[in-house]
Amino acid sequence: MQVSSHSSFTAVIIGGNGAGLSAASKIKRLRPSARVLVFEKGPHVSYANCGIPFWLAGDVPQNNLILLSPETLQQKRGIDVFPRHEVIAIDRRAGAVQVRHCETLREFKVAYDRLLIATGARPRLPDWAIAEAENVFTLRDLQSGQALKQALSGSLNRIAVLGGGYLGLEMAMVFRRRGLETVVLEQAARILPGFHEAISAHVQAYLERQGVTVITGLQPGEPRYQGPRLQSVRLSPEGRNIQADGFFMATGIVPNVELAQTAGLQLGSSGAIAVDDTLRTSDPRIFAAGDCIEVRHRMTDEPVWLPFGPAANKQGRIAGANMAGERQRYAGALGTSAVTIGELEVARTGLTLPEAQRRFNPVEHVFVQTQDIAGYMPGEKQATVVLIFRKRDGRLLGAEMAGFHGIGKRIDVLATALQAGLDVRQLAELDLSYTPTIAPVWDPILIAANAAVKKLSV
Amino acid sequence: MQVSSHSSFTAVIIGGNGAGLSAASKIKRLRPSARVLVFEKGPHVSYANCGIPFWLAGDVPQNNLILLSPETLQQKRGIDVFPRHEVIAIDRRAGAVQVRHCETLREFKVAYDRLLIATGARPRLPDWAIAEAENVFTLRDLQSGQALKQALSGSLNRIAVLGGGYLGLEMAMVFRRRGLETVVLEQAARILPGFHEAISAHVQAYLERQGVTVITGLQPGEPRYQGPRLQSVRLSPEGRNIQADGFFMATGIVPNVELAQTAGLQLGSSGAIAVDDTLRTSDPRIFAAGDCIEVRHRMTDEPVWLPFGPAANKQGRIAGANMAGERQRYAGALGTSAVTIGELEVARTGLTLPEAQRRFNPVEHVFVQTQDIAGYMPGEKQATVVLIFRKRDGRLLGAEMAGFHGIGKRIDVLATALQAGLDVRQLAELDLSYTPTIAPVWDPILIAANAAVKKLSV
Repeated sequence: MQVSSHSSFTAVIIGGNGAGLSAASKIKRLRPSARVLVFEKGPHVSYANCGIPFWLAGDVPQNNLILLSPETLQQKRGIDVFPRHEVIAIDRRAGAVQVRHCETLREFKVAYDRLLIATGARPRLPDWAIAEAENVFTLRDLQSGQALKQALSGSLNRIAVLGGGYLGLEMAMVFRRRGLETVVLEQAARILPGFHEAISAHVQAYLERQGVTVITGLQPGEPRYQGPRLQSVRLSPEGRNIQADGFFMATGIVPNVELAQTAGLQLGSSGAIAVDDTLRTSDPRIFAAGDCIEVRHRMTDEPVWLPFGPAANKQGRIAGANMAGERQRYAGALGTSAVTIGELEVARTGLTLPEAQRRFNPVEHVFVQTQDIAGYMPGEKQATVVLIFRKRDGRLLGAEMAGFHGIGKRIDVLATALQAGLDVRQLAELDLSYTPTIAPVWDPILIAANAAVKKLSV
Repeated sequence: MQVSSHSSFTAVIIGGNGAGLSAASKIKRLRPSARVLVFEKGPHVSYANCGIPFWLAGDVPQNNLILLSPETLQQKRGIDVFPRHEVIAIDRRAGAVQVRHCETLREFKVAYDRLLIATGARPRLPDWAIAEAENVFTLRDLQSGQALKQALSGSLNRIAVLGGGYLGLEMAMVFRRRGLETVVLEQAARILPGFHEAISAHVQAYLERQGVTVITGLQPGEPRYQGPRLQSVRLSPEGRNIQADGFFMATGIVPNVELAQTAGLQLGSSGAIAVDDTLRTSDPRIFAAGDCIEVRHRMTDEPVWLPFGPAANKQGRIAGANMAGERQRYAGALGTSAVTIGELEVARTGLTLPEAQRRFNPVEHVFVQTQDIAGYMPGEKQATVVLIFRKRDGRLLGAEMAGFHGIGKRIDVLATALQAGLDVRQLAELDLSYTPTIAPVWDPILIAANAAVKKLSV
């Protein structure tokens, strides 16, 4: 299919954040004469949603979170941005979208030559939760952040965080730093259930040292409301009631695929939108990028849903290039991710132990607990490193870390090793940097790699 | 050659720090019945010499710098350590060393089955400098650190740092933090002359913001002494006199090879002791490890002198294993290194631009200046990244960085990429971690890699 190159070429983008705006900018760079229209359901575009916890903690002023205003996007990049405009339908045959203004409810149709779906993801609440209750909070955008900010400056004293994943634990420490009595409820047997148990234990010990209560292995339910306020949940099977002034729901997210699904576009096995490696959907004129799509896992070649910010931005740029007529490939993802919980950094890359066992059995793993900087330096410094590798040849399959100094970026060494297909013997031979502020003489990665090599040779 | 396995096997080790004690420990682990004797010229063994600047800055108590006492080494590891004992000659034919006690001057002979030379390196002073002047300082061991510590608690107000390399700049910021008026004199055209000029400029701007005066391109000489004190040096060709209360000499180091040389062992082209990849010298019963040897550069296969702590420890362990009868290979080094100058981290790996040009021409390079963490987060955050790569295929050859957050360990991503032979296109596809405290959505490495890819395709 040849993209017409006269000036009437129109790209429509649904979603005005990382993936959508990366695509829009790329299209305008490659085809300055193109019309690029971005429709965003919410009131804000181009905001730093990963920065919201730091705004809530008081580290960052709200203004800093708005990266580019619609005016700037128009003036500097020639992108037409429409906040509070929801795309409610895609008419694939006509090559047009139906748009509704969120306040006036006025509707109109816009024709596209190329369409990008960058609708992102949204929080998934448990069945029993009433999202509208005035003290039930989520965090996905500036609006939900604003509600929480308001509550934090009010009379909130005790908060229950439902969900012991990245967001729940990151926010638990924000609440704690704001002086709230904070309890984390994770229904799995341990927090960060996707991680090795040594990481979960490291993080839980840290949270408890910081005064956060952690309750695992019990399922919250049976809510008790008083008027518009949730008062407590009951933990089963134990039966204890957890009372709180506020309930923060960090019980996972789901991709926003309804629009694509209604338009008859193919979804993948993960439930997210299926795309090929040029990020094209099952309709050749429609692309998709960001938290609403599934991608190829580089270790298994299987489609997976890995909704992380850097991937969304990279995908947006590639989708934009392809919408503008180039042909760029998205190489897939390793699932590299990181979070800062108070002062503690937690990160992972590649396959988890169960994922590795499913695909590469027999699989070995090691975990070591060591210092992340020179032992004589001041400051907390315990690090936990987990390496997961194939028994046959030592090929690295995944890695996880928790610690205080440089852990979040140290995982990138292992992400690089995964992409290059290194084995643990090669890891043990890495020439890594050293100075007392950043590492011990034997970097935690080398200590873990040496332990892995030993395990291979028995 | 077969190492006899009865209990009289004796390993003698010259030098009681990183390389020497790593070897000693390894030998005892592999051959618990071996006699392992360590002779150390100085009064201290097993101390953290990279930690001395932090002790001088007041961050670390002196006691923390002593890692293991001779008593602990004897009791816990069965190693016999002799501080203040200098090995003054090696009798290779007899298989024995001549040892002299540094105070009593009593001498004795010790026979060895295997000998390790781990004599390290020492400061190299300019010809005109009198090391014994009471206000001329160097830093290589606890003793030289003690002299400086004493001076810092005295009447030192203004210090001249001679040499704008790692040690000089690290110490300049220690002096500045202690409130001293500090001037750095670097005779090359810029500080960190081995780095790309963008890195030098970044570091110099930081030092100047911190109140350090930096003077480059002028050669200090013509010292003026008053009694035992150096009063000033003159900068040529300009002629200006630089007066100071103290002079810190960071004008480079040289390997301690005299003992090996006198014994007739082969030195390499770098001037350091030549070893094979099992760290054996030209005498099959004598090994060498640490700052006194040259090693194979992994990018060029050429012998180079790269005196860094992690390599010394790794070499010590491998030499020890081989002395005990195993056969382990040292894979060589990439020259990965890092330093913290105040709050600023500087790091490099692989080849410098001139080194790369000499071996892999035509060579391209890019440098980018970007944020090292999310732009809206508080704190200084400019990063400079330099990538050096082969024009023909984009293969990465070297990298340099300066910045504030996670830069020292980010270089390890590029060290891993170098070891794996990745090109800049593969770098641009890395799936790197993100959270606002540790990185922007586009990590500086990816921004630099994207710039490199662009340069390749023109």
